[in-house]
Amino acid sequence: MITIPDSEYQLRIAKFQENIRAAGLDAALVHGNESDFANVRYLTEYWPTFEAGGVFVPAEGTPVLLIGPESEAYAQGRSKIPAIEKMVEYRESADPEYPGIAVASYKDVVQRAMPGHPLRKLGLVGYSVMTLPVYTRLVAELPGTELVKADDTLTSLRAVKSQNEIACMREAFRISEKAIDAILGEIKPGMTELQVIGIAQREIYQHGGEYEGHALYCFCGFATKNAISRPTHNKIVPNEVIQLNIGARVGGYSSSVGVPFSIGPLPERKKRLVEFGLEAHVKTMELMRAGRSAAGVVKDYEAWVKQRGFGQYMLYGPCHGIGMMEVERPWMESTSAYDLAENMTFQVDTFFYDEDFGLRWEDGVRVTADGVEKFSGRHMKLVEL
Amino acid sequence: MITIPDSEYQLRIAKFQENIRAAGLDAALVHGNESDFANVRYLTEYWPTFEAGGVFVPAEGTPVLLIGPESEAYAQGRSKIPAIEKMVEYRESADPEYPGIAVASYKDVVQRAMPGHPLRKLGLVGYSVMTLPVYTRLVAELPGTELVKADDTLTSLRAVKSQNEIACMREAFRISEKAIDAILGEIKPGMTELQVIGIAQREIYQHGGEYEGHALYCFCGFATKNAISRPTHNKIVPNEVIQLNIGARVGGYSSSVGVPFSIGPLPERKKRLVEFGLEAHVKTMELMRAGRSAAGVVKDYEAWVKQRGFGQYMLYGPCHGIGMMEVERPWMESTSAYDLAENMTFQVDTFFYDEDFGLRWEDGVRVTADGVEKFSGRHMKLVEL
Repeated sequence: MITIPDSEYQLRIAKFQENIRAAGLDAALVHGNESDFANVRYLTEYWPTFEAGGVFVPAEGTPVLLIGPESEAYAQGRSKIPAIEKMVEYRESADPEYPGIAVASYKDVVQRAMPGHPLRKLGLVGYSVMTLPVYTRLVAELPGTELVKADDTLTSLRAVKSQNEIACMREAFRISEKAIDAILGEIKPGMTELQVIGIAQREIYQHGGEYEGHALYCFCGFATKNAISRPTHNKIVPNEVIQLNIGARVGGYSSSVGVPFSIGPLPERKKRLVEFGLEAHVKTMELMRAGRSAAGVVKDYEAWVKQRGFGQYMLYGPCHGIGMMEVERPWMESTSAYDLAENMTFQVDTFFYDEDFGLRWEDGVRVTADGVEKFSGRHMKLVEL
Repeated sequence: MITIPDSEYQLRIAKFQENIRAAGLDAALVHGNESDFANVRYLTEYWPTFEAGGVFVPAEGTPVLLIGPESEAYAQGRSKIPAIEKMVEYRESADPEYPGIAVASYKDVVQRAMPGHPLRKLGLVGYSVMTLPVYTRLVAELPGTELVKADDTLTSLRAVKSQNEIACMREAFRISEKAIDAILGEIKPGMTELQVIGIAQREIYQHGGEYEGHALYCFCGFATKNAISRPTHNKIVPNEVIQLNIGARVGGYSSSVGVPFSIGPLPERKKRLVEFGLEAHVKTMELMRAGRSAAGVVKDYEAWVKQRGFGQYMLYGPCHGIGMMEVERPWMESTSAYDLAENMTFQVDTFFYDEDFGLRWEDGVRVTADGVEKFSGRHMKLVEL
């Protein structure tokens, strides 16, 4: 079983506190929820379920894990941070009152984390998922404190992966490929898209995954046009594009492998776009290496696709960050303002669509000095079963 | 395949608009995210993935579904509301910029939903998951509008279920029981808790479920003490409490069945608490019927548990609402201020814990005129395999 060692959590907190100080903040409040938990788990290993979670990290002092009223025993068993407080701001959205369970306020938390130190400026991390109950309580309880968005203090750490993180990701991709092997071996016309996902779920848990890496999908036919979607009770039919995106989670880290394939031959027009998609997918990988500007890769890729005559089938792309979340910062866009660095990890995510179908080749890579290490790639070939 | 008919979505919108008007609001903004999507799906059938979602509903006029920039094709295929707008406030938390994809502002949405009508007072629904990007944009774009928490305008509708909702829930519980049957048939000492969950996932999709009803769990031994938690790589051992909570999702509606059992006989002390838990579980069901006050049921239940000498093993309980979310309003607490009504649906959720273990009996019920209809109950007996 591959996990992140305790020492690495201590290192993460120390580096985060350095960033908090460098940003001129007295502390940071980190937020996560059941589906978007990465910032909280990155710092504590605590992974909320049903409830939300937070971490209060002072520039200097004791970090405190903030949990909902039902998770005390769970958090004590799991958190790498010993200081834990229960707060109603992190309760289930059904808003239970929990008569008889004592909870803390943000004032209590500040007092515990940084006694005697003034809290003039508090950075908010996980801003895009931070909720109104958290925010309104901060405003009410800490009237003299300036609240500022501060995601960069943490996401800059998460973007470059350690050897332990990379080991988790390699294993997560290995399991995803096993799940795809099983699907390709068992899929039959007449099965529902959801039954195909059941095969993947079975394999993920059988081979040591701790959960899906993202909401898995399998679509067939017209639904493949969707950039993102959910599987349905629609039946698998032959001679149509079938799209799989299957991701396992290991030690907190996600994977996803995207494969378009068919049962029986595809019509020529569809086959041509699937095959061009794979060429484009390989092209992106060839353009990547440490030191290149992210925007440069995107611009070269888009120019190449257009020059080959396929520009009208492109929605976005060609890469986004992956780690604890299957989609995380940084994306690679024509507007990106950073250079690729060794041990950044990306999903090469090659989506093309036409009026009546679409396809997505997707594999994980690690940026190296002279190119990429592929976390997956065994299914990078056109399969017509 | 059991689903909610289109006409019921129209009825929901009409009733919600009545409540909006009755609350003196000019419109409501509803929020949902990937894990807490119920309010959005209830009104539109749209179920966000990767991104968040919203619904802007004017007191009179046209409701508008608000989605992230990647979900346009998916939302067009799924939403029961034809008016759809893409907004960056609902994008993935990786904050991609999507150069070249046009997005709307809240001003645009208001103009489309209620042209020519003033928006003086806007109700916020899904307040506990509503995010700072949504809130700060509302404040910036609608400076003359008062923003008020207005969850009751929608949750009051969701609390009493229609015949179609009840049909979805019956089916979701049927599938949960099938999954538990499979686990009881296949579980062996030495399997990991996660591998047990893999059996449940396989069965859920095999029998027509569209997803898990909640993050599933299986724990063995000390971990059963956790009120909520997640399964791990720990191995199943004999003569210990093994706790399952397994829920399928059908047509948007959740189920969960909680069963404590063992492989081989339990020590007498543990067996006694498991058996008392089942008695208490049955007791709660006997106390429930339409017209009774929720707080009255809780007080009678707690008094009965204490009188039997088990008060110190009780954490909370004995019931919470279930529907699209496995835990939703209303909870039944000693502080509750409502009466049970026919077709309210609850999880009877009987959790007891001692210093080194815990147990949870959990089954779904529908309140009837003279008692409850059990959605599940086949596993309400002590099993020592």
